[in-house]
Parts: sequence; C-alpha cells; structure tokens
Amino acid sequence: MTNEKAWAKNPARDPWSEAERFAENPRTKDMLDDRALDLLYRSARTVNGFLDRPVTDHQLRQVYELAKWGPTSANASPARFVFVRSPEAKERLRPALSEGNRDKTMKAPVTVIIAHDTRFYKRLPFLFPNNPAARDWFAGPANEAVAATTALRNGTLQGAYLMLAVRAIGLDCGPMSGFDNARLDAAFFPDGRWKSNFLCNLGYGDPATVFPRNPRLPFEEACRIE
Amino acid sequence: MTNEKAWAKNPARDPWSEAERFAENPRTKDMLDDRALDLLYRSARTVNGFLDRPVTDHQLRQVYELAKWGPTSANASPARFVFVRSPEAKERLRPALSEGNRDKTMKAPVTVIIAHDTRFYKRLPFLFPNNPAARDWFAGPANEAVAATTALRNGTLQGAYLMLAVRAIGLDCGPMSGFDNARLDAAFFPDGRWKSNFLCNLGYGDPATVFPRNPRLPFEEACRIE
Repeated sequence: MTNEKAWAKNPARDPWSEAERFAENPRTKDMLDDRALDLLYRSARTVNGFLDRPVTDHQLRQVYELAKWGPTSANASPARFVFVRSPEAKERLRPALSEGNRDKTMKAPVTVIIAHDTRFYKRLPFLFPNNPAARDWFAGPANEAVAATTALRNGTLQGAYLMLAVRAIGLDCGPMSGFDNARLDAAFFPDGRWKSNFLCNLGYGDPATVFPRNPRLPFEEACRIE
Repeated sequence: MTNEKAWAKNPARDPWSEAERFAENPRTKDMLDDRALDLLYRSARTVNGFLDRPVTDHQLRQVYELAKWGPTSANASPARFVFVRSPEAKERLRPALSEGNRDKTMKAPVTVIIAHDTRFYKRLPFLFPNNPAARDWFAGPANEAVAATTALRNGTLQGAYLMLAVRAIGLDCGPMSGFDNARLDAAFFPDGRWKSNFLCNLGYGDPATVFPRNPRLPFEEACRIE
C-alpha cells in the first residue's frame, strides 16, 4: 500500500526495493538484481550516436549466441541477422535509409538488419524434431499467410531478444523502422527469400546523443488484471 | 581462435568465460554476469506446467513496469496486456484455446494476452511529444496498413520485453500462438479496438514440465557479417 502510493507519486521510479522484491519470491536465486534491471530496462536508452570504438566479431557472435535461445513458435527461429559493418556494405545500405536515420546509421560501428527467412519452415525438421508434421503447417501456397505472420511475429521477438542481449554484453542499441524495405531487400537479399524487418545500430553508445526520455503509459491504461 | 575452436566443438556452451568477455569491454560495469545471462537466455526454458503458487498483483505490475521501458518505434508503445488470472476469466479464455494448449493454460496461475491497440496512434501526442505530426503517420484510412504493421511489430517487441522481464523477476514463461484470435478477441475485446497477438502462461515453472531442448541454428546459417 505504501508502495502503491510511492509509485503514484513518482511513476518513473520503481518504489519496490531489491529487498522487497526478493522477499516476495521464494526462489530468490532466480532473480536479477537492481543493477541488472537498470542495465536492461530502467536506465537503458536508445542512443543516436556511438563512441569511435569498434565492435568485434566476437561480440556479434556473443549477441547471437544469447539471442538464439529465446522462445519462438515451434522453435521455428525465423530471424536472420545481417551485421553491416564494412564501409562497402554500409554504402549498399545508404540509399534505403530514410533521411532522418541516414547520418547516424552511416556512422554507427554496426547496423544489424533484423530479417527473417520467408521459408523458415524448411528448417523445422532440424529445429522441431518432435513433430515431423510441423513443416506442413507453413509450407505451400495455402499456408502463405500464416507463414508470413509467423515469420514476422517470431522474427520480431528474436529482434527484441537480440537488442536486450546487446545491452546485456555492455553495448547500446538504436533501433529504427524508418527505411525502404524493398530497396534494402533488393540490395541485400536479391533472391527474395530473406525479408528485412527492422534495423538496429549498435556499438558503445555516446551518452551525449540520448534524447530526453519520453513517458510511458501507466499500468492502469496498458494493462488489465482479470 | 582457441575460443572459436572450443565453440565449434560444443556449440551449446558459450566457450567465452565471464573473465574473457569482461576483458574485451572497457565498460565492464555495464555488463551482465554469467548468472544473469543464464537466467535470461542460456538456462531459461519454456515451461508447460507451474507450481501451485500464486502470482501477485505486485509481480504483474513489476513485469509491466520493466517491460514498458523497451524501445518502440516513435515510442508508440502499442502493446496492451491482459493478465487472465481468475477462474471466471480463464473460462472465457477456454473456448479460444487450441486443444494442445488448453489444459496447461487453464491450470497456469496467469495467462497474459499480449494484445495491441489498433488505434495506438491516438496516444502519440502524449508518448512522443517531440513531434506533434507523428499521429498523422498512422491515423486515417490511407495509413491503415502501416498502422497495422507498426502495431504488430512493436507490440511483439513489447511481448518479448515482457517475457524477459518475467524471467528477470524470477518467474517462468510458456508462450504460445496456438489459439483462435477472433474468438478470443470477441470474448475479451468486444469493441474491436484491441487485438490479440499471442498468449503467455506465467508463474513459478515446474522443472518437470520442460521438454528436452531443441537445437538452434548455427551462427553461420542465421547470421552474416558484411
């Protein structure tokens, strides 16, 4: 009750202390501490510029090797990630970027194209061996709409897993959907099988490029408990 | 190099030790330790059953108050979350569930409907005050397709932020998309403004209900560095 009042007073700050959270859960060892919650959520910010410090192959691999474990429908794992880092590849990206995103994206150490494989279901015999029929839920012209929705929904989930993994290993994100998908797909996925979903710049964020934080919807508006 | 070889040998286990990861990043204080990465990603599993232990209002609120901070396009925050917990509300959910998901969902302490507000853009003047024109990017019949895609993509991102927040506070998830969206929407969102996206059971997972872990795609197949 006291906590509810404190929250109402200052909705930007979680009024439940770590000790209070931990006291409620009998499996305390399975919880993140305040520092970790701040890093992933509460203090994390979208950055619009990065320090001049490279992102290594090793770090990109770490990010994927974490993100890959997040749950997807029938373990379909439709997301595909293109880490655009070289100046040549950045130049291929440039014409697809919207004007407001162009400069910051060209300067970012890495821009990830979060894409998905439209024929992701071809890999279900490997990814979901429990049910050999799973491929048939998505293959063929009759299932095109459900396959497209499944690829977009689950590829997007994986994009979120990836962004939180980027933060988890100490890097920063700048996601955006302001770009010309068709133009980007023509430049990076000419055979048409992979389709772009959204983009995310990443690297060591420059705190000076963070905008003032925008508000979020209150619990009472965005949620219902029934 | 040694690490690459170790990884190839045992792709399920991150061969980079915490010390090696931390040595690479000059901002070590901004990184999660192995225990936290295991909790969120590497050891986390989809559960199909839960211990008989309630989930409190307080915990549901914590989950939202973390998830809300994740990035969305123009801070549009289109996701809406309905926490179905009472027996009465569960009964309204029942007819929409697919047979394979019915029993476990009826027994779960809470089932979250991850939905989105199809008219999310009405809140942009509050959520994205920097640009009063943002509402017009989505409002009106001419923008219906882009509004629908934006709601689905960003509502899904928020669903992933929510699932990792559930894990972060020491609970477990069981997400699913096997249900009848139209039937669920008729029961829970009769005015048609909110639309269901996917469902997620949550509570204190029963480790006995976890299936053997399925494989993930190797980095070389799911990713490209260009």
